[in-house]
Amino acid sequence: MKIVSAKVFVCSPSRNFVTLKIETEEGIYGIGDATLNGRELAVASYLEEHVVPLLIGKDASRIEDIWQYLYRGVYWRRGSITMTAIAAVDVALWDIKAKQANMPLYQLLGGKSRDSVRVYAHANGTNIDHLIDEVRQAQQLGYSAIRIQSGIPGIKKTYGVTEKGIKYEPANASLPEEQVWSTTKYINHIENVFAAIREEFGYDLDLLHDVHHRLTPNEAAQVGKILEKYRPFWLEDMVPAENQDSFRLIRSRTTAPLAVGEVFNSIWDCKTLIENQLIDYIRTTIVHAGGITHLRRIADLASLYHVRTGFHGATDLSPITMGCALHFDTWVPNFGIQEHMPHEAIVNDVFPNDYHFDNGYMHCGETAGHGVDFNEQLAAQYPYKPAYLPVNRLEDGTLWNW
Amino acid sequence: MKIVSAKVFVCSPSRNFVTLKIETEEGIYGIGDATLNGRELAVASYLEEHVVPLLIGKDASRIEDIWQYLYRGVYWRRGSITMTAIAAVDVALWDIKAKQANMPLYQLLGGKSRDSVRVYAHANGTNIDHLIDEVRQAQQLGYSAIRIQSGIPGIKKTYGVTEKGIKYEPANASLPEEQVWSTTKYINHIENVFAAIREEFGYDLDLLHDVHHRLTPNEAAQVGKILEKYRPFWLEDMVPAENQDSFRLIRSRTTAPLAVGEVFNSIWDCKTLIENQLIDYIRTTIVHAGGITHLRRIADLASLYHVRTGFHGATDLSPITMGCALHFDTWVPNFGIQEHMPHEAIVNDVFPNDYHFDNGYMHCGETAGHGVDFNEQLAAQYPYKPAYLPVNRLEDGTLWNW
Amino acid sequence: MKIVSAKVFVCSPSRNFVTLKIETEEGIYGIGDATLNGRELAVASYLEEHVVPLLIGKDASRIEDIWQYLYRGVYWRRGSITMTAIAAVDVALWDIKAKQANMPLYQLLGGKSRDSVRVYAHANGTNIDHLIDEVRQAQQLGYSAIRIQSGIPGIKKTYGVTEKGIKYEPANASLPEEQVWSTTKYINHIENVFAAIREEFGYDLDLLHDVHHRLTPNEAAQVGKILEKYRPFWLEDMVPAENQDSFRLIRSRTTAPLAVGEVFNSIWDCKTLIENQLIDYIRTTIVHAGGITHLRRIADLASLYHVRTGFHGATDLSPITMGCALHFDTWVPNFGIQEHMPHEAIVNDVFPNDYHFDNGYMHCGETAGHGVDFNEQLAAQYPYKPAYLPVNRLEDGTLWNW
Amino acid sequence: MKIVSAKVFVCSPSRNFVTLKIETEEGIYGIGDATLNGRELAVASYLEEHVVPLLIGKDASRIEDIWQYLYRGVYWRRGSITMTAIAAVDVALWDIKAKQANMPLYQLLGGKSRDSVRVYAHANGTNIDHLIDEVRQAQQLGYSAIRIQSGIPGIKKTYGVTEKGIKYEPANASLPEEQVWSTTKYINHIENVFAAIREEFGYDLDLLHDVHHRLTPNEAAQVGKILEKYRPFWLEDMVPAENQDSFRLIRSRTTAPLAVGEVFNSIWDCKTLIENQLIDYIRTTIVHAGGITHLRRIADLASLYHVRTGFHGATDLSPITMGCALHFDTWVPNFGIQEHMPHEAIVNDVFPNDYHFDNGYMHCGETAGHGVDFNEQLAAQYPYKPAYLPVNRLEDGTLWNW
Repeated sequence: MKIVSAKVFVCSPSRNFVTLKIETEEGIYGIGDATLNGRELAVASYLEEHVVPLLIGKDASRIEDIWQYLYRGVYWRRGSITMTAIAAVDVALWDIKAKQANMPLYQLLGGKSRDSVRVYAHANGTNIDHLIDEVRQAQQLGYSAIRIQSGIPGIKKTYGVTEKGIKYEPANASLPEEQVWSTTKYINHIENVFAAIREEFGYDLDLLHDVHHRLTPNEAAQVGKILEKYRPFWLEDMVPAENQDSFRLIRSRTTAPLAVGEVFNSIWDCKTLIENQLIDYIRTTIVHAGGITHLRRIADLASLYHVRTGFHGATDLSPITMGCALHFDTWVPNFGIQEHMPHEAIVNDVFPNDYHFDNGYMHCGETAGHGVDFNEQLAAQYPYKPAYLPVNRLEDGTLWNW
Repeated sequence: MKIVSAKVFVCSPSRNFVTLKIETEEGIYGIGDATLNGRELAVASYLEEHVVPLLIGKDASRIEDIWQYLYRGVYWRRGSITMTAIAAVDVALWDIKAKQANMPLYQLLGGKSRDSVRVYAHANGTNIDHLIDEVRQAQQLGYSAIRIQSGIPGIKKTYGVTEKGIKYEPANASLPEEQVWSTTKYINHIENVFAAIREEFGYDLDLLHDVHHRLTPNEAAQVGKILEKYRPFWLEDMVPAENQDSFRLIRSRTTAPLAVGEVFNSIWDCKTLIENQLIDYIRTTIVHAGGITHLRRIADLASLYHVRTGFHGATDLSPITMGCALHFDTWVPNFGIQEHMPHEAIVNDVFPNDYHFDNGYMHCGETAGHGVDFNEQLAAQYPYKPAYLPVNRLEDGTLWNW
Repeated sequence: MKIVSAKVFVCSPSRNFVTLKIETEEGIYGIGDATLNGRELAVASYLEEHVVPLLIGKDASRIEDIWQYLYRGVYWRRGSITMTAIAAVDVALWDIKAKQANMPLYQLLGGKSRDSVRVYAHANGTNIDHLIDEVRQAQQLGYSAIRIQSGIPGIKKTYGVTEKGIKYEPANASLPEEQVWSTTKYINHIENVFAAIREEFGYDLDLLHDVHHRLTPNEAAQVGKILEKYRPFWLEDMVPAENQDSFRLIRSRTTAPLAVGEVFNSIWDCKTLIENQLIDYIRTTIVHAGGITHLRRIADLASLYHVRTGFHGATDLSPITMGCALHFDTWVPNFGIQEHMPHEAIVNDVFPNDYHFDNGYMHCGETAGHGVDFNEQLAAQYPYKPAYLPVNRLEDGTLWNW
Repeated sequence: MKIVSAKVFVCSPSRNFVTLKIETEEGIYGIGDATLNGRELAVASYLEEHVVPLLIGKDASRIEDIWQYLYRGVYWRRGSITMTAIAAVDVALWDIKAKQANMPLYQLLGGKSRDSVRVYAHANGTNIDHLIDEVRQAQQLGYSAIRIQSGIPGIKKTYGVTEKGIKYEPANASLPEEQVWSTTKYINHIENVFAAIREEFGYDLDLLHDVHHRLTPNEAAQVGKILEKYRPFWLEDMVPAENQDSFRLIRSRTTAPLAVGEVFNSIWDCKTLIENQLIDYIRTTIVHAGGITHLRRIADLASLYHVRTGFHGATDLSPITMGCALHFDTWVPNFGIQEHMPHEAIVNDVFPNDYHFDNGYMHCGETAGHGVDFNEQLAAQYPYKPAYLPVNRLEDGTLWNW
């Protein structure tokens, strides 16, 4: 299975995606996602200039060796750009191997542990009434777990919340939009949100909530104490996590389940969090953390400490990553939940795939490989458009966490 | 001080360098290094495509805010590519500020803590006799601290060692060279190296040694115990450091001073190492760890724990980084030592600078700014040439650490 | 920039201030504050007799070296007298350097991270009605954060509280006034205070409260648990902090945010507090903790642990310290809030300055240096008058904490 | 016992001393030492301006209350200046109480635990031969414990070492002398010193050694490992101790007994060191750490952890402190050893005292009080002369620890 070509594609069907296609002498090819929201071209360059030349002539079946070659051999290990590039290679190679085995990917991981994958939906409201509508809509689609985000009185624009009828897409500007944050206003409001949703929908619905790194550990502990009686399924990204030990304070104050990790790029970013049982769900994704080879090591470590998976699954990941995640979720024994934010139709046209949603659950397909293909011709009609995630400032102008 | 342009240059006068030039409305410009050995174009792309558009129109004097904007605002924090790109911006902005203040950079950091900067030289021998010659040459140039690396009997090619008369340059191939490693052979040989050098040169000469991440912690502890009686100035990069706690084992077995960190890109990579006194010298560089703004935070943290600086200073850093390091070294209270590996003459032509070496010490200059300029016309004559650091395998073929 | 003179001035325009003026050969001079409430002459003597002789002839631009010389070189490190004296020198030298660079001080620190500095006011009432009036007045001046202190029924005189219409000045007596304290009475009353203020003003107003070291850790934990539902912005100085570990008990019982440190004089006084996330705000001041050079090390350490600044800013600090704090606050990335207690008009006459208050925010000026000057002639008309802070006794006569 | 006067004297019979004399209505007076080497006038000012006015009229018998009044009541607690001033008051009050009881001071502490106080002498040689002579002389005077310090080849001037025949006095210059340090040269030499002394004098003699804060913790561990086979009685001040935890590294590497603390001014400076058994001897002195009232608390805490006393006793402490220390040493159950560096004859004339040296032991007297008086008339003939301890720089000019 000698690699004869590796090509990088950048396209923008409604949003930007970076895709790697590896072809072997035997004609089997594999597809990998290399999308890093807002830094797409740096990964593309990393792959094209510094990785592709190393792949040509290598044996595609030596996935582990190539992984180590790209990780240890680069000298500059870790980091989102590097690990996203490695992930793209890794996923493409697993796609090839599964196709060669003529099996859907989950079979190579160890087979099915479950028949379908429970997913959670997003419900975002500019105010509580709007949010109730959104939750109801999601519930009607069959979702039994819903992430609730609400506009905050006195803050003009809140992360993740758009006017009624407008679909939310964070990376929406050719220069980063500057948003504003007030922890005081958020804390004064958030209990009302949970109270209203619980009053309207009761306790059978699992509620998730994303704080988007806005708080300090002690503020996070306050929020945890306030919200824990509403039994959140999880509270996500409460504080920036470079200092993993900072979760100790949150953990010691509240039993509200904690989720974190969509920005992580390696096992080293969560090792302390996991080994000290400081979190309940690890959200790290295949595309940003070195692919299937590395993520199964994260999941396996997590399992030792009763930590479950809860992979990031917003639209900034291409269907390739969603497809792989569903295979992974179908196998992984310590599965928790999977985020689900459906792509625009055009995205599924560019990345034809065999997974589907049904009544609150996702199902991966049975096609050999990871089940997601790439339509080069169609993609070529949607060239790259610069787009940035917003940045966030406190009311006094201080650059804050996003 | 509005930024009106930011340009990225990739050139290869004897080796590849990435350079950022930021110009302000007032005509003052600043120069930053963005060189990441073997991944140059990824950083260049990161800067050109994702950072430069954000800089135009910003106030060049708001260095901290721009730093936070590029760090917190990117969502995907840390990682060598990101932090090298941030460093290039940061250094260029400090260059501008120092020029605006009409002061050499060290003045803005707090002024001189010493008049000159003690540096250590490299001495690499294919065997012990060759090494003795190299040490003697370095000593004759005035160096009082010398890093000794020796070929290992039975290993064909050892990191850092070249045949007599051939200058050593690690990134020398258009595809990574594959080298071989045997810990057994290394451990069987290394005491002979130190014993021979101490016998020849006595104990007044400070000896450094780089293990280049080849060992496990317990093997490192063995080497530390073997070598500590020869009083090494430091043993460098004994083990890969993603797991910072792995240094506890080494530290508990030997008092040989430990240095690490040239591959680190943020304070989070060394926080545990420093706070637990697991190392003696931190080698992280300005160019790969977010520039002056971030590195002074690392140095200040280190100071609380009696950890001193010992910055990486090989030829993979452009003269811009060397110039900045010398300003930093001239100021920083907990300075230890500075690595020195002189650039080819052509490199100094492309990057005209005002620092100089004299009898074992380096001196930064008194030009306003960091004292290193960039000759765009000359640089244009030396286009980028792909070059890779080697990779390393054990004798059984296992991909190993480099 | 050779130092040719250094002069110490003690004056008392409404209260005592100690001021250091350093002059250089080039004619540029710098001004530093050396005021230590109730111990002014000891610092003046320390400077005049033991520091000034060391400064003459030294290079004013070597700020770091002079700092280390006065800290390491004194043998008897740390302590309020020593660190206040060092701060005066450090601030004067940074003033000189910024003037030489022709830049406002914040530029040398890294530039603006925000355009203005949020400050909190004092509202002190002999009873709750009186306090409500005071809070309303502060709110009408634009303050969005207010420190509330109330008289306690059954305690004759409470710290920080004066009869209506009388301005509060703690150091008001030629011999220390003896006040009385009852923790029982305080705990029985304090919830009423917060409940009344929240009922009157709602939750959008940030409320701060100072306990002035009166409690044990477990009593502090009780107060924290009682008050946390009123969402204080912070509870300040709950216990004496020589034993930093004593905050563990408080922290483990309440998520009420904790602030401490106006009596600290070095990073060693708060290192354990910060590294163990035991506090949320560090209140240490430039004048009492070794100046800008040392305080930025404290702020940078705090930043790693999500601890923000909240500098002491009462009238016992001269306008020099307020000016420097505003430059520092304008730069420091982990800024929280700044205390503001306006000086009498005569104080601003003696220390002409370019900062101003506007609608709840302070603004530092754009003058080169820290923006505060010293009118020697006017100062000479207000000679030193002994004045003491009160001491505090329990109802049984036990000397207690103040 | 109302206090009617308190006077501060600064005199310089061969070196500077600050003395406090407190007189009571009954005519009984007490004498306290307030000498802080190189910062004498700051303490004198602290006492005269800020403490003496508070004492007049107070009841001299309320020692504890006055101690708390000066410690808690000052707001700015701790620090060498403050604690030295408090010590002077405390010692004078204990002198008064003992005189009133008509008892030597040790009786009030709890009576004799031993008949005499073992002391150690200084032996300083510019080289090993010179040192051997000095050790022999000390031994002939009866000392069974000797602190050995040697000149270091290649370092021009070493702390504590003077040419043959010249008495050593560190505070010898009207401006601080700048000395030089090289850890490499020290470590290359120190084993020779111990080996030579052990060879010459055998193992019955207890050898002490002072490193004077020159090393990092890991270097200290190295020296401990090198020297422990020569069975030092203690290794003193190996590293600066603001970071008490830094002793963990030394402690984990060597069983060489560790002493530290002559620069400490309160129990908080050594609480971590003691509670973690990181040291064997605590060297804090009565004069610099709040007097007898506070030091007995340090000794009592130390006792819980098998830490013994080893008080500093160089000539920078006046005979008042030596007299008090001998009373303390005579009582304290966990006594270890006492430093002894005899004063010039003129010092004993100015401070007539009843203690004496005999064959390696000191004996406190039986006079009521602490047994040291103050000859005001004679003292007046020796006015204050500015004198500084040296400062220390590394060979590259870095300001280093002294």
